[in-house]
Amino acid sequence: MTQQQRAEIDQLMRSARLDTSLPPEELRETFEIYTTMGPPPVGVTLTDTTLGGRPALRIEPDAASAEATILYFHGGGWVYGSPRTAASLTAALVRHVGAPAVSPAYRLAPEHPFPAAVEDGFAAYRALLEDGVAPRRTVVAGDSSGGGLTVATLLRARDEGLPMPACAVLFSAGLDATRSGASMDEKDGVDPLFDRETLARLSTHHLAGADPRQALVSPAVVGDLAGLPPILLQVGTNEVLLDDSTRFAARAAAAGVGAVLDVTEDVPHVFQGLHAYLDEAVEALDRAADFVRRHLDVG
Amino acid sequence: MTQQQRAEIDQLMRSARLDTSLPPEELRETFEIYTTMGPPPVGVTLTDTTLGGRPALRIEPDAASAEATILYFHGGGWVYGSPRTAASLTAALVRHVGAPAVSPAYRLAPEHPFPAAVEDGFAAYRALLEDGVAPRRTVVAGDSSGGGLTVATLLRARDEGLPMPACAVLFSAGLDATRSGASMDEKDGVDPLFDRETLARLSTHHLAGADPRQALVSPAVVGDLAGLPPILLQVGTNEVLLDDSTRFAARAAAAGVGAVLDVTEDVPHVFQGLHAYLDEAVEALDRAADFVRRHLDVG
Repeated sequence: MTQQQRAEIDQLMRSARLDTSLPPEELRETFEIYTTMGPPPVGVTLTDTTLGGRPALRIEPDAASAEATILYFHGGGWVYGSPRTAASLTAALVRHVGAPAVSPAYRLAPEHPFPAAVEDGFAAYRALLEDGVAPRRTVVAGDSSGGGLTVATLLRARDEGLPMPACAVLFSAGLDATRSGASMDEKDGVDPLFDRETLARLSTHHLAGADPRQALVSPAVVGDLAGLPPILLQVGTNEVLLDDSTRFAARAAAAGVGAVLDVTEDVPHVFQGLHAYLDEAVEALDRAADFVRRHLDVG
Repeated sequence: MTQQQRAEIDQLMRSARLDTSLPPEELRETFEIYTTMGPPPVGVTLTDTTLGGRPALRIEPDAASAEATILYFHGGGWVYGSPRTAASLTAALVRHVGAPAVSPAYRLAPEHPFPAAVEDGFAAYRALLEDGVAPRRTVVAGDSSGGGLTVATLLRARDEGLPMPACAVLFSAGLDATRSGASMDEKDGVDPLFDRETLARLSTHHLAGADPRQALVSPAVVGDLAGLPPILLQVGTNEVLLDDSTRFAARAAAAGVGAVLDVTEDVPHVFQGLHAYLDEAVEALDRAADFVRRHLDVG
């Protein structure tokens, strides 16, 4: 797309920037309205269900082409968001891969601080396997904090001795609650959505005093990543969270994990969500689907 | 492939390990024999030519499917190797992409230390453009030190105001003559080919006293990477050079470059060269061709 289109999207995101200092309930409502005012996703059927003891949304493609189930974790800084707010992006991934997704409504902070969401993520993954889904036919994916929850779920599952899924896909994942990446400062102002202060407010809710320097919230910085499945990390160069992905990829590779870091220039946080407007988003979803299919073929 | 096959390849590489303490002439002969004893590449025609004042090898695919020219730089630690020693891998890339490659015999150290090879790389790129090849239809690629030469050539071309190619592809690139990556120690003994000592001998020939801490030899560590084209870096987790790629990808992303870091687990240096034996090699070449085609489409 053109430089001008990118500038327009940048402007749009700046004007629709969430105020994370709002009371959580208000923040959730605003985000819900903002993310669900578009037309409902096409080419899929949405069904309410439950998974691992939590409400969940099942997104089934009209045309299934891959024998797989995607466990999807929505974003929202561990404080807001729901399976519905991520439904447009989840549905796009479902259409590109040609396989259904189940997206659980994991518990949110501050009412349910760390590690509540990780417990729910782990329970969802275990429930999927107990339902008879083969791990080699399972994909775990998520955006933003949902990408962080993806990694935390896999680390918990590994430590509990559960088999790993075929692969994982992370869109602009939050992987460092210590906020120590150089991009936190280098991309300050470049990032149309987040800065250190907005993220700090969310972390305060989420961590509620817990140490940010632990693997389940900062796997880009600390903890053993050996034994994780192949992981695709997609991220944009305009993100303060850029280094969450670059450092996680480097640490995963060092631990022997088949990590793929896929950086798109001049795009914002979770740009794949802009698939209706942005060629780069559709192309990134194509590459994500290619990655998933390759690892399902192997599995 | 199976763990056993990987172990066999690892064993094979250890037994065929080059002794970099040999006199350069002997090192070159040994490497030439080792790399060219297989059958000649199929599906391509090899022609001797010249490019930018140096002898070069042109590798034309029998079935061309992309309108592009690949400028390919062979590996060999800046001391050994030739277009012929990389012909099998270059031909595989040519077949996968469906476009011809030209591979110049850039000058080697110690007879021609840094920056002789970079001058030749730059002259080759400039000559290609002067021959009328459109930059957006040009791909620069290389393995090992040839990957390092790829980046150095692009940095020189950028600084001289030449247009950038559509993209670049690096196989296990050497991007840090300071050898400061953690993988230098973490993968010591895991890497069947290289260790700090073998690489140091080559660097002594190549640098001949020049400062290793400069962008043209250590772009994973120092120098401005802004303005480089999209770059794919493929690397194996068993390499002491792993962090050359992980750190370059992170620095490139920070500079706004569309970098893709593609890490394959449990494979050695330039594993794509094992395309006759190793599924992972063929799959990596497929992904490299996908990357090239995507960026040619855009161009």
